[in-house]
This record gives sequence, structure tokens and C-alpha cells, in this order.
Amino acid sequence: MLQAILSPTRRLVLAGLIALFAIPALGAEDPLPSWNEGTTKAAIVDFVARVTKEGGPDYVAPAERIATFDNDGTLWAEQPVYFQVIFAMDRVKAMAGDHPEWKDQQPFKAVLEDDRATLAALGEHGLLEIIAATHSGVTTTEFNKTVAQWFATAREKRFNRPYNEMIYQPMVELLAYLRANGFSTFIVSGGGIEFMRVFTEKAYGIPPQQVVGSSGVVKFELDASGKPVLIKEPKVEFVDDGPGKPVGINRFIGRQPIFAFGNSDGDLQMLQYTAGRDGASFMGLVHHTDAEREWAYDRKSPVGKLDKALDEAEKRGWTVMDMKRDWKVIFPPWP
Amino acid sequence: MLQAILSPTRRLVLAGLIALFAIPALGAEDPLPSWNEGTTKAAIVDFVARVTKEGGPDYVAPAERIATFDNDGTLWAEQPVYFQVIFAMDRVKAMAGDHPEWKDQQPFKAVLEDDRATLAALGEHGLLEIIAATHSGVTTTEFNKTVAQWFATAREKRFNRPYNEMIYQPMVELLAYLRANGFSTFIVSGGGIEFMRVFTEKAYGIPPQQVVGSSGVVKFELDASGKPVLIKEPKVEFVDDGPGKPVGINRFIGRQPIFAFGNSDGDLQMLQYTAGRDGASFMGLVHHTDAEREWAYDRKSPVGKLDKALDEAEKRGWTVMDMKRDWKVIFPPWP
Repeated sequence: MLQAILSPTRRLVLAGLIALFAIPALGAEDPLPSWNEGTTKAAIVDFVARVTKEGGPDYVAPAERIATFDNDGTLWAEQPVYFQVIFAMDRVKAMAGDHPEWKDQQPFKAVLEDDRATLAALGEHGLLEIIAATHSGVTTTEFNKTVAQWFATAREKRFNRPYNEMIYQPMVELLAYLRANGFSTFIVSGGGIEFMRVFTEKAYGIPPQQVVGSSGVVKFELDASGKPVLIKEPKVEFVDDGPGKPVGINRFIGRQPIFAFGNSDGDLQMLQYTAGRDGASFMGLVHHTDAEREWAYDRKSPVGKLDKALDEAEKRGWTVMDMKRDWKVIFPPWP
Repeated sequence: MLQAILSPTRRLVLAGLIALFAIPALGAEDPLPSWNEGTTKAAIVDFVARVTKEGGPDYVAPAERIATFDNDGTLWAEQPVYFQVIFAMDRVKAMAGDHPEWKDQQPFKAVLEDDRATLAALGEHGLLEIIAATHSGVTTTEFNKTVAQWFATAREKRFNRPYNEMIYQPMVELLAYLRANGFSTFIVSGGGIEFMRVFTEKAYGIPPQQVVGSSGVVKFELDASGKPVLIKEPKVEFVDDGPGKPVGINRFIGRQPIFAFGNSDGDLQMLQYTAGRDGASFMGLVHHTDAEREWAYDRKSPVGKLDKALDEAEKRGWTVMDMKRDWKVIFPPWP
């Protein structure tokens, strides 16, 4: 009726006005404002629309909407070494006064002397020795305090900001977007479970019970005053990496994810496990392509190597997120 | 105004009418209808009121409202033996055709011949052998199907109902009441984590990711067709009992509970850990006192022994729930 009485010119003006008001309205409601428009963002939004459409062929009940995210290199940065390793090295320095023997004892000597060549050649065994010495012999409560203190005071060298501000703003938005659509969001990371839990709730909105990670043996005791404590022992209990990730998901969550995001070969099995689910699933990889705003690395990187998983993603049509192309910003504003 | 113009008699009639309508209204809203009025129910309701009262001295933020429940003997029955043991024995019988050697091999021989004397003397080692043989060599998916099938067909002998209908109606109400008050409800049980997860969501409203239990080693593989599977191995990984309970809580939940309910000495450390929290906490024990409607047992029972924890509860003023006195009904209606 209205259209019928309007001249073609007026109709065009009206359409323009509608579009003008429609665009900002859409923009204001965009749940992923830090993501550039393109195939990656479209793939995410399309997947979420499909699995939440009641009566649709890909509908998934909310209880089954499990989303799992790797942490290092997927939710926060991981270069030039995992931040937990930097924490451990800082701890070696802080604890050295109580350990005079470390001055002459590797791998501690190399940490104290900042001997890069020796550190670079440490290997898994040396690294585990440093982790064990700095992550045990204390109660879980004391350890949590030490980690919180480190986050409050230590600064990442290149960007000069706290390590817990080295998180990826677009991923923070993605996590919130998934939760707003009835997903439960979990971290499934090779990082230490107690280390991560200190910052994940504030940084990502992910509470401790939704953090799956590597762990050491912990022992229950009543201390001299009768107070119950948990003592961290220098013994690895579970490594939540590679094939350990589906094992950790099965143990902690008990459900196959429908959405998983990783960035390295250590995430391959988690993505395979997600892809193997009956019904719709989304597999994503963060490809670090932005040396200017973050770091660029993949097949040859000693940290966060992305090689086999990249081949598999290309072969299977998984979503490969290109940091340079797909993200408007990397880190949240700080301070 | 209204009161001023009413005669005393009319006022009394009006008050009576208000009371008449108010009582059924309160009754309809009682979130714990299967609990008799008394000190136990009052202690629970009072605790929930205190920790949810914003601005009150005992207020606890919703994220910290972690409630942990033992399963065997706390949320469902456990006599004359743990139901998972009955499942394992039923599996030995079902699998015997593929294991002709079991006819002459203990402890399987005793199960197949229903040799009660030998079974009663099995001990932990024999029991673990039966569990290992019946809970491994299959994928987690296959195992879950077998357990679901057992729940659908097996019947508890004394009450002639499915084992997943041997749950306690008052506890189902308590779980829902806590959740309605912003608590997260978890199971923390010595039972097998995968066994429990098959029925806990439907029975208690507790999803798989909120079930902490004992576990065996699980291995990730791609099967011949390239499908990812998790194979259950015959090796114990974690025993979530006694001092293992606070360890399991720390690992899976990462927060000290503010509310915990158990029924045996295997729950003592979980209750101590809860009591050791800074701030308000509630520790409860189910005391099995009703031989007629359920079972009566405590200090001398080979299953669900309640001795040290009962002493500690009396000493510390924890809440001891008396089944005969405190529960109007035990099991939900069935069929």
C-alpha cells in the first residue's frame, strides 16, 4: 500500500533510509566486533546459527554444546616461550636465595646466569626439572597466591603489559558469543591446570571447573594446626597435550565437543576427536601470520609448531583463522 | 483503613481466611517436600538463606557456591554391595561365553557359581580384578551403551526396581533446591566416573562435567576406519575416595566446596576440606537408620562404614541426617 503510493524516487530514498538505520543497528549488535568480515567469521556465525536452530537438521541441545579451546597460542600468546616457563624462570631467580646449590647446578645455573644457549638446548627433561622445582613443596593455596602475585607484577617484554593482558580480544568475544548461544566453554591446554585457573575466570569468563590442563600429583594432609591442605608434589600426573587432550576431555567433561579451536600439532587429536562426533562440529585453527602485531610462525617453530594439523585442516576443510587477515585487533586495550 | 472499619469478629475471620490461603501456598512452595520438619531441614534452609543473603555476613558469591555430594549411600543406596559391583558381576556372567577359562579361575569362578563365601572374602584385589576384566578392552562409547542397557534391564532384588530408581527422592530435591539458589552441584564419588555419568544427568540433574569419580587409564586411537576412539585399559588411574576426594575436587573443580554431603568414612576428608574453608560452610552426613524402608548400618558395616566420620561430626557439630526421622519418603515413585 505504502509502496504503491510512493514515486520510484521516494521509494529509493526510503530504502536508503532503512538501510542507513539498519546498518548501525546490525553493527551495534555484532557479537564479534574484533573480527573482520570474511569466510572465517562467516563460518563461525553460520555454524552457531545451524546448531542453535530448533527443528533444523543440525540442531544440538544446549547440554551437548561443548566448546573446547587450547590456551597457549589460541587464547593468549605463547612466544618466544610459553609464559608459564617464564613464570618458572622468574621463580628460580626469586627462590635462589634459599637454594645456594643452584649457582653451580644445571639447569638452574643457566636460568640464573641468563645463559640463552644452554636454556635453548634444555629439552623436555631440563624444563620439567625447572617446573618441578618451582611448582612443588607448597600448598595449592600458596602456589595460587604466588602466581597471582606474578601476574600482578611481571611484564611481557615486547608489549610491556601484564601476561594476563596478552590474551586475544577476538577470542574473548568468541567465547562470550558461544556462551550467549548456550555453549559451555572449556579450556583444554597443555599448560598447568593450577597456573591457568588463577587468571582464566577474569580473562575469559571461564571458571576453574571448566579448565582442563596438565597436572602434578597433589597430596591431602592436615597441617600442624589441623587445617586441611593440599601439597603439590614434584611428580607429573597428567600431560594434557596431543593424544592427552581427548583423554582429558573424556575425563573432565565426559562429552565429545561440537566446537574446538587450537593452533598447533598438540591440538590435532582434540580436533580429530571433535570431527569424529556424530552430527555437526566445528574445527578451527589459529594461524599466526602477523609478525607486526603479534608473531608469525607455523611449521618450523620450536614453540607452537603447526605442521601436521595444518595439513589435516586443509585436507578436511577445517577453518584456518588467519590472524593478519581475520582480526581487527589482537590484544585488549591496556592499561 | 480496612482494619479500622471491621469488627473484632470479622477481623478474626479475615485473619483465618488469610491463614487458610497462606498455608497451602507455603506448602506448594516448599522446595524440600520429602524432608520432615526438624533440625536437619532447618539447618539446610538456614545455611542456604545465610550464604545467599546479599550484604549479609555469610554471603557467598554464586561462583563460589560449590556443593559436592558423595554418590553411594548419599544420593542412592549401596547395600548389600555397591551397585557397580553388581553390574560387574552381571558382566562376568554375560561375558563368560567368550571366556571359557573363567570356569576354573578365581575370582570369576566364584561369580559364575554364585559362591557367596568366596565372594565375601574377595578383598580389594579380587574386586579390582573383576572390575578390570569387565570395564576394559572396549571403547568408552561401547562401555556407556553396556551400562545404559544394564540400567534399562537389571532390577534391584529387594525393591524390584531399576538401580537408577534406587536414588533418594529427598536428595534429588536438595540438589534442585541448591541449584535454584545459585549453587553448582557436583558428585564426588569413589564410583567409576564413566559408570556414573550414564545416569546422573537424568537422575539428579547433574551433567557429566560435574561428576568426579574414580577412573581407569583411557587411550586415544584412530580405529581402522580412521574414526577417533578412546579405549578403556585395565589399569587404575585415580581412586576418588578418602584423601582422594579433596584431591579430586582440587583437580576437577579447583575450588573448595561450601557445602558437602557424605555418608561414610570415605567422605571424611571431603568434609574436613569443606570445613577448612575460610567463611561459611555446611557439612552433612546421611545416617542410615531405617532398616524397614531402606537399610540400617554404620560403624560395623563392610560397605559404607560410618565410624570416624560420625565421631568427627559429633565433635565438630556437623549435621547428621537421620534417615528414619528426617525423610518422609526414600525413593521416587516407580513405575
